[in-house]
Amino acid sequence: MTETNNFNFTTPNVTRSELQDLVGKELRIFLELGDLQAAKSILTPVQPADIAQAIEGLPEAMQALVFRLLPKTEAIEVYEYLDYSVQQHLIEELKSQDVCDIVDKMSPDDRARLFDELPAKVVNRLLEQLSPAERQATAQLLGYEAGTAGRIMTPELIHIKEHLTVSEAIERIRRQAHLSEIIYYLYVTDSVRRLTGIVSLRELVVSQLEQTIGEIMTREVVFVYTDTDQEEVARLIQRYDFLALPVVDKEQCLVGIITVDDVIDILEEETTEDIYALGGGVQSDGDNYFQMSLLQVARKRVVWLFILLITNTITGTIIKSQEDILQQVVILTAFMPLLTGTGGNVGAQSSTVVIRGMSTDEIRSLKVSQVIGREAIAGAFLGLMLGSIATVWAYFLQDRLEVALTVGISLVAISVIASVSGSALPFLFRSFRLDPALMSAPFITTAVDVLGVLIYFKLARVILGL
Amino acid sequence: MTETNNFNFTTPNVTRSELQDLVGKELRIFLELGDLQAAKSILTPVQPADIAQAIEGLPEAMQALVFRLLPKTEAIEVYEYLDYSVQQHLIEELKSQDVCDIVDKMSPDDRARLFDELPAKVVNRLLEQLSPAERQATAQLLGYEAGTAGRIMTPELIHIKEHLTVSEAIERIRRQAHLSEIIYYLYVTDSVRRLTGIVSLRELVVSQLEQTIGEIMTREVVFVYTDTDQEEVARLIQRYDFLALPVVDKEQCLVGIITVDDVIDILEEETTEDIYALGGGVQSDGDNYFQMSLLQVARKRVVWLFILLITNTITGTIIKSQEDILQQVVILTAFMPLLTGTGGNVGAQSSTVVIRGMSTDEIRSLKVSQVIGREAIAGAFLGLMLGSIATVWAYFLQDRLEVALTVGISLVAISVIASVSGSALPFLFRSFRLDPALMSAPFITTAVDVLGVLIYFKLARVILGL
Repeated sequence: MTETNNFNFTTPNVTRSELQDLVGKELRIFLELGDLQAAKSILTPVQPADIAQAIEGLPEAMQALVFRLLPKTEAIEVYEYLDYSVQQHLIEELKSQDVCDIVDKMSPDDRARLFDELPAKVVNRLLEQLSPAERQATAQLLGYEAGTAGRIMTPELIHIKEHLTVSEAIERIRRQAHLSEIIYYLYVTDSVRRLTGIVSLRELVVSQLEQTIGEIMTREVVFVYTDTDQEEVARLIQRYDFLALPVVDKEQCLVGIITVDDVIDILEEETTEDIYALGGGVQSDGDNYFQMSLLQVARKRVVWLFILLITNTITGTIIKSQEDILQQVVILTAFMPLLTGTGGNVGAQSSTVVIRGMSTDEIRSLKVSQVIGREAIAGAFLGLMLGSIATVWAYFLQDRLEVALTVGISLVAISVIASVSGSALPFLFRSFRLDPALMSAPFITTAVDVLGVLIYFKLARVILGL
Repeated sequence: MTETNNFNFTTPNVTRSELQDLVGKELRIFLELGDLQAAKSILTPVQPADIAQAIEGLPEAMQALVFRLLPKTEAIEVYEYLDYSVQQHLIEELKSQDVCDIVDKMSPDDRARLFDELPAKVVNRLLEQLSPAERQATAQLLGYEAGTAGRIMTPELIHIKEHLTVSEAIERIRRQAHLSEIIYYLYVTDSVRRLTGIVSLRELVVSQLEQTIGEIMTREVVFVYTDTDQEEVARLIQRYDFLALPVVDKEQCLVGIITVDDVIDILEEETTEDIYALGGGVQSDGDNYFQMSLLQVARKRVVWLFILLITNTITGTIIKSQEDILQQVVILTAFMPLLTGTGGNVGAQSSTVVIRGMSTDEIRSLKVSQVIGREAIAGAFLGLMLGSIATVWAYFLQDRLEVALTVGISLVAISVIASVSGSALPFLFRSFRLDPALMSAPFITTAVDVLGVLIYFKLARVILGL
């Protein structure tokens, strides 16, 4: 968490991102000219996050060069903002002592996240070189399961005892500020470090200096356990507008805090996972997609495509079984993309809204049956509108009212099937603890295509009298 | 922004959301029994956000009843957490004086957002009843365009002058804490209220009491203008891990701040918009989807379905033009869902990854041509894998090698077309300032379906010698 805002918009008409690009370009020119002094002077008034981005944009050969230009304290901050792949590259490039210094001074949660990404051999070597206190802190964090509060928390916090006065507590903050990631909450613990209360710096500042912490603290604290899912942690902070949330172990002892800045990144990561899953079953594990090799890209996409290939062959088999009717009325084929396509879209709309509602918890106040009922009616509604249009258009295209009616009526039925399966399947998968965002689409497509094509041919036989 | 954590997990084995449900159920039982005292006692130790949720879950008739049980100061906080629809309902239900009290005491940014949702008549009535200072603050915020920094900022901040000492500044905070949304940054302004620096409370706490603000403040401040897009504001706070960002007007005068808790909600709103658009062109404007009428739901979905209906009719027309070949080899029909379906999925994967990369800015370090090139190769790769499988399967299904080869080769071509259009079209739409998330799918589908079917029939004619 950064607490000062450095760096200015020098020209009001240049947007921030354009400015960032300029910094990167300028930097590169000076490096290519070999003018390290000029390169260094560009970096001085720039935010660590911006320097990190400029470094990421450089060719690999230049990255370590620029990094070594940074003053040591700034280097650590910049390092924490770098992408994992660049962090890893720098570990290989920098001198072992420099690496050790940086890794030792990183905050434990950032360090644990970096170690997650590094090869085990490198991690072990780095762990050995850490100071004993840092080694213990890191090993402890790495012991918690990925995706839990324990893994993302930082043990760097300020805890105080109830009997302190406000002025003693302020003095404590003054001395310990450099040890804590945030100083805006003080956590009150008892003799065995059990969490008993919380005081915000705001409350401290407006209280009388001689009051005790016990008098002003809030005793009912919202906290999470080390094994609480990180998404739940994020939702709690979002819900209550907290700046941080304390983490306790099974014995209710305070072991760390999770800060709001991490929460934004967690929510973004979880959302990217959802979006990737929804948009074609692309698997995501928090890595930057644009830095993966093409082999990794293909691997992350092919499974789902393969499942849908099988799905489509089922539809194909059904179509094949209706060869007799298609042979007689070839024009029926022309409307199949319209029917399955529209069905797929209606289903996607329903499932998208339901799955997003699950993620943001907006859906919670409604019963499952209410949601599905609503979607079914919406589907019927949409089906009637689109079905009427399709009937007119089909008639116009080939002049046979029977075929046009078959198309229109099928579309109404398909819309209802699509919206019901689109809204019901996500709930079904969730109840089996499967990811609705990933699982829903293939099954909705199957339901819509198979049932849709069957209904279409059945109706054709009835209406056309075949 | 809330700065104390109230409310406890009393039983470690009950999850937080189960507990919230319990509170809601209990509350309802007491209300139905008419025991207002018991209902009131449930609410006392509960977080405002939780009370708001419990109220939202109640039947409309009970909402005002529970709301009136709350102590006045708490009522305002709870009110700010309620959904707009419930806020609106309460305005109609509560006595005019109560409404006026609440609205007067809301923070100006929350009030401006509420007024956005209310009918103009109600807004004018409420504005008249506000105290002059609050009326002016609200009118000013409402004057900024929706979706800009000016609209979401709060004017409630602490600003100080450079010549103050640290101890004077701390005294100022002590006196003004209740007037400001956050007290963790002090903004330093000159005689005409131009922003000249920033001091964090952390820096203040660790400085010597006799130092002046001018000595310890950071002079290079990251700020935004009142007309900066809210998404850019959110990205800046996310990027630099700030707790708040100052907002200045055209003359560089400080007019407000935007806090991190608002940013989380903005990012979520923008993401929902993206997800809805990607998942079938569902339009979103930040309202809760599950509280809309079915007519609104249908209206928000039908446009896009209609566009895709037209798209599908184009494909249909092409199929119709190939009636002669279909009549001769009916089995070709059976593979069409497989081809267009898989193409659609490959295209969706590419566009999802690219559009998400645009939103999160991960894509920025790559050139457009690099991204499209990468996706083209990935598409060829996936096409080869799936094409081989499809060839084998097609041969197995109908024993004609020519047909099987037609299917397999078409699938490779379609995969490449799909991944290229899936990655290129979002950039194209963005360059025309159209929303890529909303626009891409129909055009990708059209490209894949039309070109795919054409290639399929062309290949069939060549390979089958028709």
